[in-house]
Amino acid sequence: MTTSRDTGRDRGRDGGRDKETLRRACDRFLSHDPPLNPRRTLAGLAEVLPEDAEADFYGKGAVIEDFEQRIAAMLGKPAAVFGPSGKMLQNAALRVWADRKGCRTIALHPQSHIAAEEAEAAERVYGLQGTALGAPNRLAQPEDLEAIAEPLGAVALEIPLRRLGCRLHPWEDVEAFAALARARGLPLHADAARIWESQPFYGRSPAEIAAPFDSLYVSFYKGLGGLAGAALAGPEDVVAEVRRWQQRSGGQMIHLFPYVAAAMKGLDERLPRMPAYHDKAKAIARALSALPRVRVSPDPPQANALLVILETGGADLVDAALDVAEASGLWLFNEPLVSPYDGLGVFEITVREGAMALREEEIVEGVLALQRALADRRAGGRVA
Amino acid sequence: MTTSRDTGRDRGRDGGRDKETLRRACDRFLSHDPPLNPRRTLAGLAEVLPEDAEADFYGKGAVIEDFEQRIAAMLGKPAAVFGPSGKMLQNAALRVWADRKGCRTIALHPQSHIAAEEAEAAERVYGLQGTALGAPNRLAQPEDLEAIAEPLGAVALEIPLRRLGCRLHPWEDVEAFAALARARGLPLHADAARIWESQPFYGRSPAEIAAPFDSLYVSFYKGLGGLAGAALAGPEDVVAEVRRWQQRSGGQMIHLFPYVAAAMKGLDERLPRMPAYHDKAKAIARALSALPRVRVSPDPPQANALLVILETGGADLVDAALDVAEASGLWLFNEPLVSPYDGLGVFEITVREGAMALREEEIVEGVLALQRALADRRAGGRVA
Repeated sequence: MTTSRDTGRDRGRDGGRDKETLRRACDRFLSHDPPLNPRRTLAGLAEVLPEDAEADFYGKGAVIEDFEQRIAAMLGKPAAVFGPSGKMLQNAALRVWADRKGCRTIALHPQSHIAAEEAEAAERVYGLQGTALGAPNRLAQPEDLEAIAEPLGAVALEIPLRRLGCRLHPWEDVEAFAALARARGLPLHADAARIWESQPFYGRSPAEIAAPFDSLYVSFYKGLGGLAGAALAGPEDVVAEVRRWQQRSGGQMIHLFPYVAAAMKGLDERLPRMPAYHDKAKAIARALSALPRVRVSPDPPQANALLVILETGGADLVDAALDVAEASGLWLFNEPLVSPYDGLGVFEITVREGAMALREEEIVEGVLALQRALADRRAGGRVA
Repeated sequence: MTTSRDTGRDRGRDGGRDKETLRRACDRFLSHDPPLNPRRTLAGLAEVLPEDAEADFYGKGAVIEDFEQRIAAMLGKPAAVFGPSGKMLQNAALRVWADRKGCRTIALHPQSHIAAEEAEAAERVYGLQGTALGAPNRLAQPEDLEAIAEPLGAVALEIPLRRLGCRLHPWEDVEAFAALARARGLPLHADAARIWESQPFYGRSPAEIAAPFDSLYVSFYKGLGGLAGAALAGPEDVVAEVRRWQQRSGGQMIHLFPYVAAAMKGLDERLPRMPAYHDKAKAIARALSALPRVRVSPDPPQANALLVILETGGADLVDAALDVAEASGLWLFNEPLVSPYDGLGVFEITVREGAMALREEEIVEGVLALQRALADRRAGGRVA
């Protein structure tokens, strides 16, 4: 729980060009979904709700309570709470578990979202401390939990682990983690934001994937394409306490129905698309890994995402991607990953509707164009 | 910072009758706004936004940044940040100020929202501790700040103080607090959720009311009738740090545009209504205080709210109000206040569109009906 990244506020002008202006001018998007139109989105959400729907009121009301019950049932848990942010709900759940165990130490992967991407929320907002479950560049294994001798408040796994290219624990490892946690009397929690995207790999329903975990968080934007919003599912009493922390944290807002409506729409329209996203990720991986000086990881992709590793450079990757956007209207990625190795450029492709709308040949051409732009910049053909 | 109330989740069946069912059947609402229709609300918000508006992305983008600049300008502060929850943003601001002073103790009124209504968020989420500025049943006075000898991290005032019937500090007291805080090198913060509703009393613009404060929070639902959402305005560097806490707390969601659109609509359509709300509150106060065994407080009302004190009883006030709702379709209040004195029933009227749609005679008749219902219940005419 030491690294942190300020997401979203570090963009802006780059080499005299405005990234946002270039992004807006693009008509093709390799990663994520094409940009939302707020006006049309709101109008579309209105249509999701019945004419006589009542507004929720501080977490009460049929529109939110019925949805929470639907989620609890989908995940096979006794209860679920809906909130604006998964970070909020799952850190609260870990705090609730930790308070029960009388131990604020949580075992979690050093590259997990909780540890590395939340501005130290777990420590500084919820008073938790992390201890590394395994090592940064690989998935944790059950032996890594056995190796932690200190008292713990809970164990958390990320399903799939985003930073490692959305990699998934083998199912037998999930079951082994659950057995080990149970033997130590520890709750096992899942950051399952992308549980929907993990179904094709496991060949299991959300409830089956959730079964080994005492609690889990799921997200309604990301793969499901909603507006924001998350749910935390688990035992009744844990969920009740999470609600209290949600209130404390400012997440029990007077009205959450726009997010509930978007989540309902996402489950209805997007959940059936997950196998297609996975197939597309595999197809993209096959096409790109056939190119010279391009690798993909994991190969084959396990969920709807893959890392693309260019042996043709990393330092000026953002500039080169902007060259491609400017020349061809193809937006390749938002931010590249930082490779620990000189000379490698790394970015993530998350397959959603953006990639689904592109033919493999277009994607290959985009990556080739990126390589050419990198080479041109090296050769001084373009001022950075 | 000791009292806490669980808002919104304590409602339900009452004496065999379902409160929500009765509320839904009502067609007149004395307090607050009539219930929102989510479907029509979303469709209406779509119309607020221009066709080519871009979705915000983790706090970036014109739709949210332009609105933040508009709010900063309205409040005469260098910067503002928009977020889902005022509780989140203003506790974060107090923490930021406290960290600068190296002191986590905040002077604030014991009946302020921060102290009494947020499930100990300031302490348990943001690590602050409160020290009482004045006494519970009256507004704080500058002498109360002078009487606090201990080191402080910040001083907070609530403008107006909701629990005391939306009572407002005399302007000369606000200026005196500011001078005292300045002399001690302390930041002065305002919980100004209802700054809009305070304008008629002060006869000053929002920027003029904000001027004595180093930072303040304003709300976009409540009087403005939005969906949820708040802003924290103050110095650039404080606002930048609040953004970081907003991220930590889970409030920097990927898309906040539904709340921004609702806030824009509220400022355009509702802000001009504030003098009318104040006038109506005064008219209601005059009409009700003329009734036997009814008092209002403050008399006259200072903002758009008043407390109604019935000398005809308090213990079965909820049941009696449900009798009125059932018999006449008039919803009087959501929850009564707890009076410290036997035999007094107390509820709050907040004047928004609900009360504006009612004639004083209807309101008088409703309160008389409430008194009759209380008397009937005392006389055993109705099973509680």
